[in-house]
Amino acid sequence: MREKRRGMATIQFANPPQIYAWAAVGGKKESQGPLSHAFDMLFPDTMCGEKTWEQAEMHLQKCAIYTAANKCDMPVERLDLLMSGDLLGQCAASGYTARGCKVPYAGLYGACSTMAESLALASCMVDGGFVETVCACASSHFCTAERQYRFPLAYGGQRTPTAQWTTTGAGACILGPAKDGASVRVTHATLGKVQDYGITDANNMGAAMAPAAHDTIRTLLSDTGTHPEDYDGIYTGDLGEVGSRLLCELFERDGIDLTQVHQDCGTMLFDSHQDAHAGASGCGCSASVLCAVLLDELLEGKQKRIVFAGTGALMSPTTVQQGESVPGICHAVVLESGKGTN
Amino acid sequence: MREKRRGMATIQFANPPQIYAWAAVGGKKESQGPLSHAFDMLFPDTMCGEKTWEQAEMHLQKCAIYTAANKCDMPVERLDLLMSGDLLGQCAASGYTARGCKVPYAGLYGACSTMAESLALASCMVDGGFVETVCACASSHFCTAERQYRFPLAYGGQRTPTAQWTTTGAGACILGPAKDGASVRVTHATLGKVQDYGITDANNMGAAMAPAAHDTIRTLLSDTGTHPEDYDGIYTGDLGEVGSRLLCELFERDGIDLTQVHQDCGTMLFDSHQDAHAGASGCGCSASVLCAVLLDELLEGKQKRIVFAGTGALMSPTTVQQGESVPGICHAVVLESGKGTN
Repeated sequence: MREKRRGMATIQFANPPQIYAWAAVGGKKESQGPLSHAFDMLFPDTMCGEKTWEQAEMHLQKCAIYTAANKCDMPVERLDLLMSGDLLGQCAASGYTARGCKVPYAGLYGACSTMAESLALASCMVDGGFVETVCACASSHFCTAERQYRFPLAYGGQRTPTAQWTTTGAGACILGPAKDGASVRVTHATLGKVQDYGITDANNMGAAMAPAAHDTIRTLLSDTGTHPEDYDGIYTGDLGEVGSRLLCELFERDGIDLTQVHQDCGTMLFDSHQDAHAGASGCGCSASVLCAVLLDELLEGKQKRIVFAGTGALMSPTTVQQGESVPGICHAVVLESGKGTN
Repeated sequence: MREKRRGMATIQFANPPQIYAWAAVGGKKESQGPLSHAFDMLFPDTMCGEKTWEQAEMHLQKCAIYTAANKCDMPVERLDLLMSGDLLGQCAASGYTARGCKVPYAGLYGACSTMAESLALASCMVDGGFVETVCACASSHFCTAERQYRFPLAYGGQRTPTAQWTTTGAGACILGPAKDGASVRVTHATLGKVQDYGITDANNMGAAMAPAAHDTIRTLLSDTGTHPEDYDGIYTGDLGEVGSRLLCELFERDGIDLTQVHQDCGTMLFDSHQDAHAGASGCGCSASVLCAVLLDELLEGKQKRIVFAGTGALMSPTTVQQGESVPGICHAVVLESGKGTN
């Protein structure tokens, strides 16, 4: 058995799993943003041809999973496992999508950190030898999230300056044991602790999630003996503008300058003229930015090593109505561009 | 790396993880049922002294986790990982409980199969050498579930004969590498596929989940080359009376008699005079029956080997209102009573 180093929260994979293929799917606003060229599929129709927004979100997941699987010539039904989650109550988009895939399914919930959680756990399943191939997936949809967490869309409520705009999109990765040739591999994973600094404003999730991102990234750097400059990028997803500033301030107090390598998926997906206020959010944000841009850059060697740190706000509409504060969580994985065999 | 046998969905653990300790916590109805003597804690007050039912459910989880940890002299903050889930939107009971535990947290969603899902994934994390100790936990609360899935409690809606009664309770297990001495170990895990036979009646979840239980248990038996009579019990949780009959009928069609060893956590928790109709349900049902009764019987040697097959209905209130059918899932683990070293 692999020796677990006592007191280390970060998992170092003995045989770093490879991400064979990935796909990003987006909606209308994503198609108007700066990363639109990098998406595999874009749906100008919010309904994606379905009857409800929830079905549209299921369709986004399905397209991401099948597109990623197709890219590595893997029939979906031959996957050993699907690990996925979303923002809907009872993770409905994922459960119903899994119904169509007809493969073993483990539902996850990490709010907007779900893509990182699924990559971390999927990598454990591969490195532990429990599965040959696994799909990690996450999605969100502006319309399903907005009416669940905030107001009916038709109400036309004003958005606050700190509010983020839920991504309509999904990302999916197919993982398995490393093969020969150019590849992207998951070398480390840090599953994070819930942090709560008492933020009760559900429209300021960036502030609620920044302490969690700080804790997890600091743990990862400490456990691996690395520094921010050892990475081509440390990508959070998705703190937005407010949370990103707070994260860098928290690191500044530790005497660490994160600003040179830090980027946030929530500030990358939309342009400032797109009226998204503090940036993008939702499980689909970091999932689609990862699968549209970051993994391609790693495969092409434009980046050698990055941290992908998914951040989630774990409140529910019910707990917010009850006056509870918003707990944040952050899960991180280290992704490396690799060539050759293990 | 462990050799994965192609086409096998069932994971066989190389070094079966041990369940060091467990705890079951219940509410008022559970305290009046036939298993009341076996619970670690019972709360006659539906609020558990908290201000909301949701906070009460968080308290149930907290009590289960801390009681289980205390039993094996494990300070909760020294756990490497907490894997838990519940029925609430955004798995709120688990996320807020994790906030208080201050350990790495991976949120799961498998509806009423969550305890089996968390045991299966937690065992992978231990056997893979990724963590030393992990807590698997699940909970439900009648009042939080009823007002979320069905009607406000004050409305006093009539319950149908096929309806099940959501358990107010939680179960928690602490797992780690096997040690010397008497123990309960997880030897196999089968993560299930979503099955949907088109049931649209959200008050007949047993019927919706039975095909999933059939598929997963059949897969487990086939992959391990075992037969029902090789087990002291095959425990589903929770099909209730209706789903249990259907499960045995589905196996009868395969020429397999499941009736001699099958029991359902949903029919064990309440007596027929308790007006629970088709039986108990909720993540807390199979979790608390497992931790109140089954694991003790294994440790005492009253049972040598059992299948614990958690069953979940993956619908959400939104998908039910939209006329979607109810997808079922079942995850199973094999638990063995063991003595001596690996």
